[in-house]
Parts: sequence; C-alpha cells; structure tokens
Amino acid sequence: MEKTLQLLIGGLGNAVRPMVELLISEKERIYNDYKISFQVVGVSDSRGAAISSDGLPLQDILTTKDAKGTVSAMTKYGTPGMSASEMIEACAADIYVDALPAFLPTGEPGTTNIRTALEKGMHVVTANKAPLALHWGELFQLAKEQKRYLRYGTAASAGLPTLEMGKLLGGCGELLEFSGIFNASCMYILNEMRSGVDFERAMAGAREGGFLEPNPDMDIDGWDTAMKTVIQANTYWGADRCLSDVSIQGIRGLTPKDIENAAARGEVWCMVGRAVMTPDGLKLSAAPESLPVDHPLAKARWCDKVLCFQTRTQGEQVHYCLGASASGTPGNVFLDLVTIARAI
Amino acid sequence: MEKTLQLLIGGLGNAVRPMVELLISEKERIYNDYKISFQVVGVSDSRGAAISSDGLPLQDILTTKDAKGTVSAMTKYGTPGMSASEMIEACAADIYVDALPAFLPTGEPGTTNIRTALEKGMHVVTANKAPLALHWGELFQLAKEQKRYLRYGTAASAGLPTLEMGKLLGGCGELLEFSGIFNASCMYILNEMRSGVDFERAMAGAREGGFLEPNPDMDIDGWDTAMKTVIQANTYWGADRCLSDVSIQGIRGLTPKDIENAAARGEVWCMVGRAVMTPDGLKLSAAPESLPVDHPLAKARWCDKVLCFQTRTQGEQVHYCLGASASGTPGNVFLDLVTIARAI
Repeated sequence: MEKTLQLLIGGLGNAVRPMVELLISEKERIYNDYKISFQVVGVSDSRGAAISSDGLPLQDILTTKDAKGTVSAMTKYGTPGMSASEMIEACAADIYVDALPAFLPTGEPGTTNIRTALEKGMHVVTANKAPLALHWGELFQLAKEQKRYLRYGTAASAGLPTLEMGKLLGGCGELLEFSGIFNASCMYILNEMRSGVDFERAMAGAREGGFLEPNPDMDIDGWDTAMKTVIQANTYWGADRCLSDVSIQGIRGLTPKDIENAAARGEVWCMVGRAVMTPDGLKLSAAPESLPVDHPLAKARWCDKVLCFQTRTQGEQVHYCLGASASGTPGNVFLDLVTIARAI
Repeated sequence: MEKTLQLLIGGLGNAVRPMVELLISEKERIYNDYKISFQVVGVSDSRGAAISSDGLPLQDILTTKDAKGTVSAMTKYGTPGMSASEMIEACAADIYVDALPAFLPTGEPGTTNIRTALEKGMHVVTANKAPLALHWGELFQLAKEQKRYLRYGTAASAGLPTLEMGKLLGGCGELLEFSGIFNASCMYILNEMRSGVDFERAMAGAREGGFLEPNPDMDIDGWDTAMKTVIQANTYWGADRCLSDVSIQGIRGLTPKDIENAAARGEVWCMVGRAVMTPDGLKLSAAPESLPVDHPLAKARWCDKVLCFQTRTQGEQVHYCLGASASGTPGNVFLDLVTIARAI
C-alpha cells in the first residue's frame, strides 16, 4: 500500500530548515523502504506563508527562503503576511509540524496552532516546547479525543531518543529520578569560563562562534532546560506538571570565582534539568549544579546531550547523544514524521 | 479494576531467584500503584517442580530452595522430577517465565516451553536467550497468531532497557550500526589481564571471585554475546536472523602479549557484539575487538553494560547501564511482567 502524506510546516527557522533538506534527500529511501511519500502543502515563516494543495516544490522553498528571506516570496504560491494560524485554518493536511519559537509566558501562537490542527483532524509533530510545557494535559486530551498522534521528540530534548525508554521505566515504577544536560549554549559558556574568562566574555565568544540563538535568554536563563525537564517528567511518569512547577535558575549569576572554587573541589558547574519523585510528589528543577568531575553528567563535552535515570532495580542508566548538533532537531522531527506515517 | 495474574516460572537459577524476592518486596507497591497482584502457580528447577492453582507461598519457595536445593521438596506442593515442560502442560496461567539456561545448539527445552505456553494462551517473558536466537520468526509469528505478548528484555541484554529506542531508530531507517558490551564475565577477565596475568590465571580469579557461571563457556566463547547481538538486531531492524548468522569468536585466544600490544597502541581489548547494516544486508559479529581507550565502549568499567547506536541524523547514541549486576536480570524480568500486566 502506498501512502502520500500532506504536511503543513509552521516556522522555518535555522533548526527546522534542514528538515526540508531531509525531505528531499531521504525521499527515495523512504519511498523504497516504506512506500511513503511526503508532500508539503504549506509552510510559513515570520513574514508570511506559501501554500499549494498539490504540494510545494521543496527545493524552491529553500532557494526562496535563502534568497528573499521569506517563503512568502515564492512565485505563484506565496502569501505575504499569512500567519501559521491562518495557514492551518486555510489548508487541509495530514500532519502539522509546529516549529515556531517558544514564546513565553503564553506559548502562543503555538498552542492555538496545535489545538486548531488537532481539531481539524491533523496529527501533530511539535519542535516548539512551550505548548507542551504549559498545556500538557489539555493538548493530549484533545489528541486522544481526536484519535490523533501528538509527537514531540525534539521538544523533549532534540537528539536524545529516550522517551520510550523513560516511559517503560516510569510505567513500571522503576524510575526514581532523572537528571540531564539538555542545553548546549549553557554548556558552551560554562566550558569557556573554565579557562578563566568571565560570563560576559564567554557569552560574547559564544555569540561570535555562532553557538547562541539571536535571543539567548531562553537558554541562558534556564527556560529551555526547564521546558525540556517538565516535558520529560510528564512523559516518563504520566504526570501533568507545567513550567511553573519547575524551580528555575539560569547561569548568569556564575562568576569566575564560582568556577575556580568548584575546580578546587574537583567539581564542574553544569546546567542541569532534574526531576525527583519524592513522597510529596515530583520535584522539578532547571539550575546550575556543581558536580564531581567523574559524574556522568560532568563527563560530557559541551556539545553532548546527557540523560541519567536512577532506577529501582536497573541501576543507573546513562544515555549520551554525542556531538548533538543542529542535525538533532530536524532529524528528530523527521523521525517523528516517519513514525506517524508508518503507523497511520 | 483489580487484576490478579497467575505466573509459571521455569527455572530458578541464581539470576532469577531474586525475581521471586521482588515479587515479595514489590507486592504492596504494585498493588497500590496499579491494582495488580501476581500469584505464582508453579515453579520448576532442575530437580522438579512445585505447583498450586491457588498460588504458592513465595517465601516458602525461596526457603525450600535454599534449604533443600529444589522447590520440589516443598511440602504439599512439590513434585520431584517434574520438568518445566510437564509443569506448563499441567497448569493454567496467564504468563510463563522461561529462565532455563540457554542450551545450545538446540535451544531446548526452552523453545518448546515457550511454544507450548503460547499455544495454551499464556503470555511469555523469556530470560532464556536461545529460543529467540534460534527460532525468532517462528515464535513471534505464533505469539502474533495467539495475540499474546512475548517480552525478552533480559534476553536482549539484562540491564539495558534500549529495545524501544532501537526500534524507534531502526523503524525510521535511522539505525546504521550498533555495537555493545553485553557480557561482564568476559570484561572482568580482560580487565584482569590488563594487569599482566594470563588468561587462565584471570579465569581462575574470576571463578574465585564468583564472577563466572559454573559453566563459563557460554560467556567466554562468545555465545552469550552472540545471542544478545542477534536478538537486538532482529528487534531494531525487524529482521529474522539467527545465531548461525553471527560470526563468533571468544576471548580464549587472547594472550598477555596481545593485551600489551594493544596498550602500546593506546587501545584495550573488549568483547563486542556488533551489527552493521550493509548494502549486502546485516553483518553480525561477537568477537574481541581492540578499541582506542577513549572509545565509548572502552571507557566502560568491566561491570557496566554499554550500547552504541550509529545513526543517520541523530549522531552517535551511547547508552550505559552502570554497575550492571545480578539485579539486572530479575529486575528486567519483573519490568517485563509489570509491562504485560498493565497492558492486558
């Protein structure tokens, strides 16, 4: 049986743009292996959208975005000013991918995008963390009522394919605690500070090296780690916590003296997302922690993602994604797309 | 809704005996959390069985086994000479756990046990690797026809809960290769040899320290690693290979000179299970490999289990189970039991 699935993509930022490249480069293999084809029937960015019920030419999406700065400049298909929300209202599709930035504190328009897509009978893949970090219960309830998939590997932590493992452990009462390093920007800066530079200098170096988002506050102030932590906690324990349940502290307050003192103790500072099941319920945090140098988290390089599970009978389970890079996100979204496509 | 599930357990060796302890120690939590109770209606060992359709007293199983060497010495319930196969024929149960040794080259009586249990409508959890390493396709086909679960976390590699992750990656064409360290006995010996002792001396030390099975050939000659490799390969890629497809070499041939030469190259010898997807299909091996000291596999301690996935877009994924011990197997079987119990 052959399947052709129609996709809408909300947002074409740096991390998701390569996913369109994957749709091109993997097209033949996905067809040969699974008899599945994807058609992008609409894509939006901050300046407008491009739509075509027959499917947009994928290379032209990328060429136009590169040359003109917006897909809405595409000849024949472009609609300047059209938002992702308007695109979803206007189009029919099998799957909606939300890749908008995580706008806090509202999580909009991503949350409404996902809600609308589900209500219109689309499956959803979200790289946008905010909707799930703020409205977990409501969105999964809606997905369940609509009998549609809502997948979010990238939002949980791009590059770490640990959701099913965590659900298996959590679902049997095995999981006592997890802790992880989910944000490379923070770790780059903390790593730089180990060589003696102060925070501002390390930030500047990170910016020059292209290791920071244009607006780095989401990373530096701990929001990114916090959203990933609550999303994973809800996944593993079947919980319904939200961002306000996470105790959050960023890395701005760390000084060269803090770094030095840690080194003297045989420790290093890491930006850690942590969730502990206590008799009083789940305790969630996203904060810098000073860890022994031989701790599994501390042993990671700045570009690695790490996740440690403490379990009841399965010991300590530690998972590394080595050299997590920009390919983590588009690959993760692609992984979720193919998983849905094979299942429906 | 309350569920009481009746279990048959074939085999009560050192690794699985603690699972009965878990059935005792976790009883209250499993009931409180999931409203699930387990009753062991039959258990067998090499000298006989004990059966009771009302459920055996669990502590007495352990006490009798310790004091008399066989459960068949249990007053009222014991049947000396009864085999696991006869026990399965004689009893009704929801789940059969096969924990017999992996008898090669036939994989019997484990294979027939599992087949009979499935035909009688039981779900199956196997810690025994041989049936799946030899008869994968047939047993899963039968489980599918019978609409019964066949779970095997322990057989795949006790302690590493990576089956779902591997299936996710493999199911999307992401998985190019995996390699892992699955056998602590081999790694203990190789580790000892690094301090200059020869193989026989290291084996003797391992035996004295209690780190070897009574019959260590299964581990030392690579069979254990090979079975785990083919089971994982079949799982991740949806393949149907068997043990004879694995190129197997044990560690017996390694000399102190080999160890020394590797060290001079900045390498260490590891007993590695490896599966590579090539244009000609899957290539499977279980053999000693000399790896750089900073290779993720080489960095593990002898008591750790490790698994590396090479992926198309998700980088290198490395998973460690730190300090995998005897608790890995009973915990893994318990994890599979609870997972089935929650699903049916």
